[in-house]
Formats: sequence, structure tokens, C-alpha cells
Amino acid sequence: MKIAGILTIGNEILQGFTLDTNAKKISEELNKRNIKTTIHLTVPDDIDKIKEKIEKFVIKHYDYIFITGGLGPTHDDLTRQSLSELFKSKLVFLEDRHLRISKKFKKVDLPKCQSEIIDISKPLENKVGTAIGMHFKYNKSEIIIMPGVPIEMESMLSTYLNDIKKINIEKNNVVTINTCGIYETKLYEKVKEFIFKNDKHIYFSFLPSYEGVKIRLTSLSSNAKLHKVKNKLLDILSEYAYGTDDVTLESVISNYLINMKLNLSICESCTGGFISKVFTDLPGSSSFFMGSIVAYDNTIKQNIVDIPKQIIDKNGAVSSQVCEMMAKKISKKFKTNISIACTGISGPSGGSEEKPVGTVFISVLYFDNIITKKFIFNVDRASHRIMTKQASLFMLWKILKEI
Amino acid sequence: MKIAGILTIGNEILQGFTLDTNAKKISEELNKRNIKTTIHLTVPDDIDKIKEKIEKFVIKHYDYIFITGGLGPTHDDLTRQSLSELFKSKLVFLEDRHLRISKKFKKVDLPKCQSEIIDISKPLENKVGTAIGMHFKYNKSEIIIMPGVPIEMESMLSTYLNDIKKINIEKNNVVTINTCGIYETKLYEKVKEFIFKNDKHIYFSFLPSYEGVKIRLTSLSSNAKLHKVKNKLLDILSEYAYGTDDVTLESVISNYLINMKLNLSICESCTGGFISKVFTDLPGSSSFFMGSIVAYDNTIKQNIVDIPKQIIDKNGAVSSQVCEMMAKKISKKFKTNISIACTGISGPSGGSEEKPVGTVFISVLYFDNIITKKFIFNVDRASHRIMTKQASLFMLWKILKEI
Repeated sequence: MKIAGILTIGNEILQGFTLDTNAKKISEELNKRNIKTTIHLTVPDDIDKIKEKIEKFVIKHYDYIFITGGLGPTHDDLTRQSLSELFKSKLVFLEDRHLRISKKFKKVDLPKCQSEIIDISKPLENKVGTAIGMHFKYNKSEIIIMPGVPIEMESMLSTYLNDIKKINIEKNNVVTINTCGIYETKLYEKVKEFIFKNDKHIYFSFLPSYEGVKIRLTSLSSNAKLHKVKNKLLDILSEYAYGTDDVTLESVISNYLINMKLNLSICESCTGGFISKVFTDLPGSSSFFMGSIVAYDNTIKQNIVDIPKQIIDKNGAVSSQVCEMMAKKISKKFKTNISIACTGISGPSGGSEEKPVGTVFISVLYFDNIITKKFIFNVDRASHRIMTKQASLFMLWKILKEI
Repeated sequence: MKIAGILTIGNEILQGFTLDTNAKKISEELNKRNIKTTIHLTVPDDIDKIKEKIEKFVIKHYDYIFITGGLGPTHDDLTRQSLSELFKSKLVFLEDRHLRISKKFKKVDLPKCQSEIIDISKPLENKVGTAIGMHFKYNKSEIIIMPGVPIEMESMLSTYLNDIKKINIEKNNVVTINTCGIYETKLYEKVKEFIFKNDKHIYFSFLPSYEGVKIRLTSLSSNAKLHKVKNKLLDILSEYAYGTDDVTLESVISNYLINMKLNLSICESCTGGFISKVFTDLPGSSSFFMGSIVAYDNTIKQNIVDIPKQIIDKNGAVSSQVCEMMAKKISKKFKTNISIACTGISGPSGGSEEKPVGTVFISVLYFDNIITKKFIFNVDRASHRIMTKQASLFMLWKILKEI
């Protein structure tokens, strides 16, 4: 098995201002390709430190050395210079590339250094930003240098991994089952016995979050066994497991809606646009998502959504009556066969004895049917909005898979 | 200045399944206390590796060595054993503690190892989980060992930092200036001269993202100097700098709107609820934010927002005419004195020669005035939505600070 080391460069990370998501992303992609990352290391913007650590990685014969950060245009971007000094290799200015990128980004004053690579390296093009990356072989190591901006790094990493034929995606020995609508403890109860029966072949781990619980299965023996255990678990958890690996609840719903030629509208109160945002994150959402009303203020619920004032006055804006009416009104106005509505108190203020902070109602309408549920999510504002968003999606998913 | 090294233990992280948020959190807290983290290192669940790296940290005389992970109850939790071997120190079972924790968490079968510490160390209590932590001085280093579960680590870290009187929070020597509406290169041009004049006293770093560029100033001499330089920079960049440290553009706008007793409505197309979501992330947004229409489909722009069909047909849904009308209609319908509208092509499909993917129009209306701008953000879908969201906020901020 080939091994990799990852070096992240930046004071920002060591000062705790920035989270190093790049190392995780690189490890994740390498892991899929059966390349084992054995070290993550972060050093300051300091030429001597950078040189020292790259040299150590080379001496230790890592098959792959991934370096991120320090390719920006400012004085504290020292990666190019460090590489040039360490490998006694000159910096080469790629003029054609500089002109092309300047034109692409319509920048007349793009710093030349962002088109410089060391002369023993090959360029790695940046499809979303201005700094060029590079890669080269040195002794036994493939050394890959990429920018620190996550989106640029990810795009470049994907190009590199696709281009380098040697790095084939092999059959993966890990699978993740994504669930929603059930707490970790209860989920564990449901699968405990099954896990004990299989833990010689599979290593199980539970990853809870406000969006649901993921179960990660790592094969300790054959991939056939992994596949079998995965399918059995999906079966046991069919009420909650909506997909595996990178599949999200919104993408599963999106596929249902597209395949069934259904369309969707949303009327949000406490989530304030979050549910709509999540659907429109998906490319292609325009084929089923019509639009939303964010009825944050009660006057909007009255005047725009047309909930009669007396219904709000009688039941309160956070009530099953108002929520249900929001779902009905939006589906009628927006001419959709499916709609979601929610109204709740995300806090930190706004609660009462009868309706404490955390109370939320969610309605899902599909054709002539409507389901309304009340929840009390006793968490902070941001988590409350995440849980409400996810519970709405979960309710809709349960309906769609039954239709 | 004291220095710290952080060692994270765990295959989960090296396989890219888990993001190492602990190292960031520790660095952040140390930074507040003027302790400089000079290395983050992650190693596998492997006794030899763990011992080797801790030993190196000790040899290098780090003042503080923080170790997280590997204190769980399973076979791959090897931190206790590694410490015991490296420091030739026996593991001691704290029976009283074991009984107390078993009772607290109502677990009869709590593994004894989770109440074991090495005999040269003092225990660090875990207020939210079961594994005990420990700390001890060795040569010149304070060594602190904590669990990997973030919530347990954070609680224990806070206990440790509070208990150890030596680590006082000193006046912070770092400040961040947040800017928007200007690219890094142009920003750097504007301040380059000023930076060169002050770089003996202040260390400057530039942090670009799709939401803007942050400039971080770290004091190398006195905090009075830092304060002075910060104010001068804010002055130079007054057109772009909207705040410092944790201040976001939406929170600055929110304060303006609340203080000026203004209210806001939004009509979103390509951002699909994202702008509304960002405002409603803020507690207290209900005092100025009325609501939105997400007019994703053209029929919604026509039938709900009331944009005449012939205007859409003539100019296209992505046009300054439609955008401006969206802003006007929403402010009238929602009875607000301020409104934002946007319509664009986030991609990946939907572009034409005349209006390529990336094109977006943004209108901001305030009372009887309206400003509409066209942008072409040549980036992927997700980044396009972030840039559009941020450009809308930036346009509104510029208006509010002039009113």
C-alpha cells in the first residue's frame, strides 16, 4: 500500500483562526484510492520550517507528499521560494498562462508570481482561482503543491487525481450508511445484536450530528462481506436509512421529484429560507422547485400568504393550524402538488410557558393529503434551524418513498 | 512568548473521515493567551508513532504539549499505554472516580481503563464524558492529555486553562480587518506601501475567500502600535472594511437597520433563499426582516411577484429590468423601505452567448432610490451563490453607511 504525507502551511491555522479542511479532503480522496495517509502536519509561514519538513517527508520516502498553502501573492506566501531553495531549482514564469488567466479573470494587474513554478515541476492548472499549482517527482516521492483556498485546492486535487492514471480508484473497503429521524441511542439498540454478530469482519462506528446519525462500516475481511452486511443493515434500518456515502436527503428527494414529475413549493418561517437554500444548492433543482415565501413577520403570513388574522390571533403564529394553512396556501398559490411549511421558535427569545423556545410545527402537503407534526428541539438557534430543516426533509422523504 | 505543539491521535482523521476541529480549538484558546502554536501533527493509532512524536515534542522543549485522542475504551485506543511506556510510568486505576462516573452516567459496565492515569500525572476531570484526562510536567514541558471527542475536549481544555493560573488571558495581540468588494491583488496594492512602513511592528497576512478578503494584523511590539495601525488601515480601506474580528457583513447591516428603524424584504432567484437564510441566522432579525419571495421559476416571477410576462419575454428573466422590478414589487408588497433582488445563472447549465453562466443582476432599493448592478462571477455554482449573496450585502452596506 502506498503512503502519503500532508503538509499544510499557514500561521492562520496554527493561530486557530482557520480550520484545516484541506488535509481531511486530501486524506478522504486518497483513502478512496487505497493510499494511506500516515501524517498530517501544519507548519508556520516560515521558510526554514517549510524546507525542513518537506525534506523530512522526502527522506522518509512518502510515495505522495501533498503540500497546501502559501501560494498567494503576498509577502507571507513563501511556498514557492521554499521549494526553489530546497530543491535548488529556479522559478520559471509561465507568461502564456499569466496572460490567459489575466484575461479569464479580467485582471490587468495579476501578480506574476502566481504563474511561477519551479523548473523541475509541471504546472497544475487552477480552474477556479489565479495561483498555479505544481507537481514533480523527487527521489521516490510524487510532490504535489496546491493553493490553500479550499475550493481551489479541491478542484486542483480532482484534476491531479484524474490525470495521474497510476492512482486508480480501487474497490473501496469503507461504506457509510446515512440515517435520519432516529437518535443514536435508539439506533444503536436496533442494530446492536447485528453488530455483535459481524464485528469480526466489519468495524462499525457511529457518527451523530444534528442532521442524523451516520454508521461507518470498515471491512476487516472481504469486500463481499462488507457489501452483504451493508445491505442487511439498510434493510434493518429501511425506515431511517436514506442513502450511503455522499448521498444527502435533499438529493434523494430531488431524484424522487424529478422521476415522479412532481413540483415543490415551500413556506418558511423560523428557517427563514434555509430549506429553499438547501434544495437550490442542487444543480437541476429548477426542474422541480418552483419557489418559496419566507413569511418571517406575521404581517407577511397574513397579507402575502393569506392566513386570516383571526386564525393567527386565536392559535398563535406557531401552531399546527397556521402551519397547515401555510402549506395549503403556498401549494395553491405556486400551483405545486407538494409543499412544505414550518413555523417555530428557534430562540434565543420568543418562547412562552405553553410554547417554549424550541417548539416547531412542520407540515408536508402532497396532493390532497397533509401531515403536520410538532417537535420540541431543545438546542441553540443554529442547531434548531438545522434540525427543523432536516425534519422537514425527512417527513417529505418518508411520504415520497411510500407513494 | 511560550510555544505549544499539538498532537492529534487517530486513524479516523488520517483516513479523512473526521475533521480535526480540536487542534483549531486549542490553538484558538492558546492564541488568546499569547501562547504560540508552532505545530499541528496527526499520527495514526500506533504505539511506536505516538511515542516517537511525543518524545520529539519533549526534546524540542515545547512549553505546552497538547495531546488529544486515543482515550476511548476500544482496542485501538493506545494513548495511555504509549504514555506509560514512553515515560516508564505505571497506570493507576482511580477507583473512587470510576464509581462516581459509573453512577453519574448510569453505566454498570464502564471500562476501568477510562479511569486510569499514569502515575506521574494529575487527573483532569471530564464533565461531559467518561474518559479521564491527565496532565504533568516533564522536563520543560507541560503535557496535557485529553479525549478526542470535541465536546469532551473543549470542556476539559476550559477546565485546564482556568485552573492553571499561570496561563492568563493577556490583552490580545491580534486583530483582523474584514473587507468585501475588492479582490486580494487590488487590496494589496492599496496597502502595500503602508505595510512595508509598519512591518517591523506588525505582521500582516491576507486571507481571501469568496466572501471577501481579511487582513490579519499580529503585533510584534506594543498593542498600542497595533491599535494605531489597525485604525489607520480601517481609514485607508474605509470603502471596503466593514468590521473587525468576528463581525460579519450581515451583522453590521442588521445593526444599521435596527438603529435606523428600517425594514427589509428580499426577492431571490438564483440564490434560492440563501440571502434570507443569512439574515435570519442572526438572533433578533425579526425586528427588521419581514420576509422574502424565492421566485425560482419564471411563473413565480410572473404570477406571484407580478412581473409582466412581456417584460420577461423581452429582456429575459436574467436582466436588469426584471431584477429592478423584482426589488420594487417586493418592497411594495411587503411594505418595506429597503429591498434586495437578484436574478442570475449560477450554473452549471443555463447560460447563453449573450448571458454566460456566471451572469447575475443585483438590485438594492432604499426608499425611492434603486441601484442595479451586473456581475459575471466566473466560478462554480456554490461559489457563485456565495459571491452573489455577499455582493448583495456589500451593495446594501455601502448604501446604509452613506444614508
